[in-house]
Amino acid sequence: MPVVVQNIQRAELGIIDGLASLGVATVHEAQDRVGLLAPHMRPIYAGARIAGSAITISAPPGDNWMVHVAIEQLREGDILVLAPTSPCVDGYFGDLLATSAQARGCRGLVIDAGVRDVRDLTEMQFPVWSKAVFAQGTVKATMGSVNVPIVCAGALVRPGDIIVADDDGVCVVERECAAEVLEKARTREEAEAKKRRRLAAGELGLDIYGMRPKLEEMGLKYV
Amino acid sequence: MPVVVQNIQRAELGIIDGLASLGVATVHEAQDRVGLLAPHMRPIYAGARIAGSAITISAPPGDNWMVHVAIEQLREGDILVLAPTSPCVDGYFGDLLATSAQARGCRGLVIDAGVRDVRDLTEMQFPVWSKAVFAQGTVKATMGSVNVPIVCAGALVRPGDIIVADDDGVCVVERECAAEVLEKARTREEAEAKKRRRLAAGELGLDIYGMRPKLEEMGLKYV
Amino acid sequence: MPVVVQNIQRAELGIIDGLASLGVATVHEAQDRVGLLAPHMRPIYAGARIAGSAITISAPPGDNWMVHVAIEQLREGDILVLAPTSPCVDGYFGDLLATSAQARGCRGLVIDAGVRDVRDLTEMQFPVWSKAVFAQGTVKATMGSVNVPIVCAGALVRPGDIIVADDDGVCVVERECAAEVLEKARTREEAEAKKRRRLAAGELGLDIYGMRPKLEEMGLKYV
Amino acid sequence: MPVVVQNIQRAELGIIDGLASLGVATVHEAQDRVGLLAPHMRPIYAGARIAGSAITISAPPGDNWMVHVAIEQLREGDILVLAPTSPCVDGYFGDLLATSAQARGCRGLVIDAGVRDVRDLTEMQFPVWSKAVFAQGTVKATMGSVNVPIVCAGALVRPGDIIVADDDGVCVVERECAAEVLEKARTREEAEAKKRRRLAAGELGLDIYGMRPKLEEMGLKYV
Amino acid sequence: MPVVVQNIQRAELGIIDGLASLGVATVHEAQDRVGLLAPHMRPIYAGARIAGSAITISAPPGDNWMVHVAIEQLREGDILVLAPTSPCVDGYFGDLLATSAQARGCRGLVIDAGVRDVRDLTEMQFPVWSKAVFAQGTVKATMGSVNVPIVCAGALVRPGDIIVADDDGVCVVERECAAEVLEKARTREEAEAKKRRRLAAGELGLDIYGMRPKLEEMGLKYV
Amino acid sequence: MPVVVQNIQRAELGIIDGLASLGVATVHEAQDRVGLLAPHMRPIYAGARIAGSAITISAPPGDNWMVHVAIEQLREGDILVLAPTSPCVDGYFGDLLATSAQARGCRGLVIDAGVRDVRDLTEMQFPVWSKAVFAQGTVKATMGSVNVPIVCAGALVRPGDIIVADDDGVCVVERECAAEVLEKARTREEAEAKKRRRLAAGELGLDIYGMRPKLEEMGLKYV
Repeated sequence: MPVVVQNIQRAELGIIDGLASLGVATVHEAQDRVGLLAPHMRPIYAGARIAGSAITISAPPGDNWMVHVAIEQLREGDILVLAPTSPCVDGYFGDLLATSAQARGCRGLVIDAGVRDVRDLTEMQFPVWSKAVFAQGTVKATMGSVNVPIVCAGALVRPGDIIVADDDGVCVVERECAAEVLEKARTREEAEAKKRRRLAAGELGLDIYGMRPKLEEMGLKYV
Repeated sequence: MPVVVQNIQRAELGIIDGLASLGVATVHEAQDRVGLLAPHMRPIYAGARIAGSAITISAPPGDNWMVHVAIEQLREGDILVLAPTSPCVDGYFGDLLATSAQARGCRGLVIDAGVRDVRDLTEMQFPVWSKAVFAQGTVKATMGSVNVPIVCAGALVRPGDIIVADDDGVCVVERECAAEVLEKARTREEAEAKKRRRLAAGELGLDIYGMRPKLEEMGLKYV
Repeated sequence: MPVVVQNIQRAELGIIDGLASLGVATVHEAQDRVGLLAPHMRPIYAGARIAGSAITISAPPGDNWMVHVAIEQLREGDILVLAPTSPCVDGYFGDLLATSAQARGCRGLVIDAGVRDVRDLTEMQFPVWSKAVFAQGTVKATMGSVNVPIVCAGALVRPGDIIVADDDGVCVVERECAAEVLEKARTREEAEAKKRRRLAAGELGLDIYGMRPKLEEMGLKYV
Repeated sequence: MPVVVQNIQRAELGIIDGLASLGVATVHEAQDRVGLLAPHMRPIYAGARIAGSAITISAPPGDNWMVHVAIEQLREGDILVLAPTSPCVDGYFGDLLATSAQARGCRGLVIDAGVRDVRDLTEMQFPVWSKAVFAQGTVKATMGSVNVPIVCAGALVRPGDIIVADDDGVCVVERECAAEVLEKARTREEAEAKKRRRLAAGELGLDIYGMRPKLEEMGLKYV
Repeated sequence: MPVVVQNIQRAELGIIDGLASLGVATVHEAQDRVGLLAPHMRPIYAGARIAGSAITISAPPGDNWMVHVAIEQLREGDILVLAPTSPCVDGYFGDLLATSAQARGCRGLVIDAGVRDVRDLTEMQFPVWSKAVFAQGTVKATMGSVNVPIVCAGALVRPGDIIVADDDGVCVVERECAAEVLEKARTREEAEAKKRRRLAAGELGLDIYGMRPKLEEMGLKYV
Repeated sequence: MPVVVQNIQRAELGIIDGLASLGVATVHEAQDRVGLLAPHMRPIYAGARIAGSAITISAPPGDNWMVHVAIEQLREGDILVLAPTSPCVDGYFGDLLATSAQARGCRGLVIDAGVRDVRDLTEMQFPVWSKAVFAQGTVKATMGSVNVPIVCAGALVRPGDIIVADDDGVCVVERECAAEVLEKARTREEAEAKKRRRLAAGELGLDIYGMRPKLEEMGLKYV
């Protein structure tokens, strides 16, 4: 049954922005390596790093009607996340939809399908992570749903979960855990900053992490 | 039988340049969504947007002899379009061939195979859409044909058809329909410009396109 | 048996730098078209062109322990080359490891698996050629080997062999042949420079290479 | 945190067997086309058609330790379902594990990774749906979890959900809905049986389904 | 504009059956190696070898409405050939449609998309060559066309062209050339039968084809 | 430089046949998990299990001339192993070449490219492991080499190395290690036979392998 869930819960923007500043790799580590989308999800241009609350879209193959419906549900700080109900690379989304989404505060799109007008989207600085770039358009003939749980590129995304995306890909953080993950990620980031300085000075990970005895015990031979 | 067809018909440059300025997504929509090459055809650098008359090449796998033959057939405003006779990612084309092609007015290459010297090609601003970047070279041992109809990345391309290519991919327009497609594409572009302004101002596609009654009729529930 | 081979032989840096300046496509041609890695090996950013001595790593899937071990073996002018023992796209390498490797003179990484922190690596100008970009991290639980012969992306790489990498991909040159390949590559480069000038002036490859009689003999028809 | 959930709920075997007899395509349609695993999940031999309660396994890449743990949790009528935490084609499972699983009543394996010993598994009539066949073995070095919700080949599978698998692929049915889906699937099957007889007699779907007026209204032209 | 072309021309059944008996590899060679569909087109069961006149279908992604329309156009000895207008693996076709098609004399299906109910299709001995097996069904919401020229898996197929399909894949023969191709294929088959006997007796292709002088001339060294 | 190495060393047939009887998975484990070809190498029919001495072929893309040359080098118990010099799926090998190879004692073909006439090859019981089945033929225009070391599907294969192939894929054993690998594989097989009996009787791997204390130590929780 096609449905639009309207009043979803979102995490605080402060937490979301904190996650954005740390990036996908750090956040993913901080939550014990869960929630990563598949590596075929690539950004249409380099350098974007965003986070936002997921507005989810379950759409039929080659049909973007529900994207129009979803845009009405957007608030400042949201990210559209679309999973087709069967594998599809059609261009569900282009510069007109991006104009509309951006006007409503949308920070970007994560789509396990195709996108088009990527030159315009790049100029607008509207970031997209997608499976493909493809000019093939879509129809508006069959229903889907908005703000239901979806599996996008192999990860479960529930409406209001936090999406973090950068050049390394896309990660989803459960809304309920967002504050805790942010704290762990910050701790991790600080620890890494210290290690980075020591490594830059020429110290070896073998010594910093105390690996030598374990390697010897496991039988690694130097010849 | 290997053959070179020499005097092919071309569309007017004015029409071709008009199509270039509109881009792949708009042109493809304007001709009722036919003629798109497969999404694995990607540009070697971002930002190029060209159109031109197709000089077609049917070449054996790993053999670029016919590219040399095709270059002699080039005129100002042409684009080389190569389809191997079986799947191949070898680098058929590099900076020497690009120098030669560019000297004869060629605007770019569309190749359902590999290309190399992409750093040089980028510096020369010679755009290429290809299936792969691969330094593996080719031999010159077997014949192919120039200016015969080919299927390139899933689309039928006849010599003299118009190729439009940009960051969204590659589209072919039948020569006989080029003027009509240009007109439709311009009309479409103007209509989109108006919509873009309304969407940027925050109006919703749901209202602009009058979608709400249809969605209700099809059973979409808001909860 | 896990092993680290410590004192490998390297080619002279002068030869290595000479190969870097010529690039992958020219070097590959100069050594009779052997040694190219598969075309799925792509750079994380455009424009890098490097050469160096291979420090090889054979690592289990999803386990980057041996990368730490390999970094100790690095000298100025080396390149890390990692092949997983079974297909894997996990992100074995990120900005901390790159900081450490760069501090020890490493020029880049070639990995038939995944890499992460690519925004940081790009800022650091630490080039990587990989099969994937993926934030998924790895564990440190099982042994591999360093400086043993490996097959990386379909090519045999022995420790101390010279790796050449640029936007066209990655090529390996046997250490023993490096001087000879450099000489041949330079000769080739000079010959190409002459041809480039003639082609730029509008001469045709058909005439420069004397192809017309052979094409006629093989039955090519002009119609 | 690695965990084994021991006392999961299962559907009645009568319902499960009913679903098996109807097959993937019918069950998938009956539950409104949700729950299908990706099309890369293929059976190792043709002709098997099974259903069972999912014992889920989340395992690190190249590490099958948790399979041993999961086998202890098996009861008559269960199916093992394994999703690696990152993409992997290693052979997690072979004839020894199959012998053990079969001894405990397991009906088959669904694995978004590799399997091996497929000749033995075929002889044993132990069916497997997998992403790959690959003799590469795995280690036992890192923890995973058993009977936690997983995303397997793009579908969410919770422990105790019903897996239906045949030559068309794999579908998951939520445990709570199993009885209802079975009833709908049977109704559908009966309706199809009637249509099959009419179609076999030469009647056209165009007439049986009353499609002609709608096609005309939508503008289909016969020429 | 959606259209159904009704009275297409077909080749004689005698010619078609002759082509079937020779198989894809021989027919493809006999027509100078053109017309082969891409290698991803695989049979759902081994051993079928058919030929027939193409009834072509151009269908939107995930929409099989036009298959129902096409079935009415079938005559004894025809083969359905479907190309989606953008890449799709949905199961457009199952046992009900096969029952209907078979009742009207259809010999099989060639589809650059997905198929389902393959166990039933195998029992019915209704052969299918497809890009995927996938239980995901389709909708009936948008128009396509029947009996227009299509590009299917990289090959141009016009209505009435002859499709030859067996375990090696699928080849299309232009209707106008069918008689000539059949004759060439028979000649080729006879020549091969002679060679087969000589090769089975231990003679070498090097001698039968007189290759030794040419190999020597081209510089092949025996060491 | 194209070359044919004529008098290669081979392992004893007794050892080779011993390896064949144990199969790929066992042999691969017995030699510490090295030497496996990539999982895209699949048999054209199920059930074959062979071993033999490798006659290696390095061939240009789409050119099978060297296969004819290699056949002369075959002796009883050999296997042809072909790697193209760049990725290719053309059908290098069909029933005529198989007839010739079989007449000279060849046990099968391993080819990182395409094969055709698979119905005939199946009838002849001439097993092939390949990357693709594709009817596209090849030319005889350029040289390659026979019995030089090659990288085939990611594994280094030297002439005279032992190839083991079955439904699980293909593994290469270095000739010098063949006797030792055979012994280890037999020991392993015997140990597995014992375990198989215990597992079939319902004992758990957790107990047979003494895993419980280690799992507890590593923090696995049962809930």
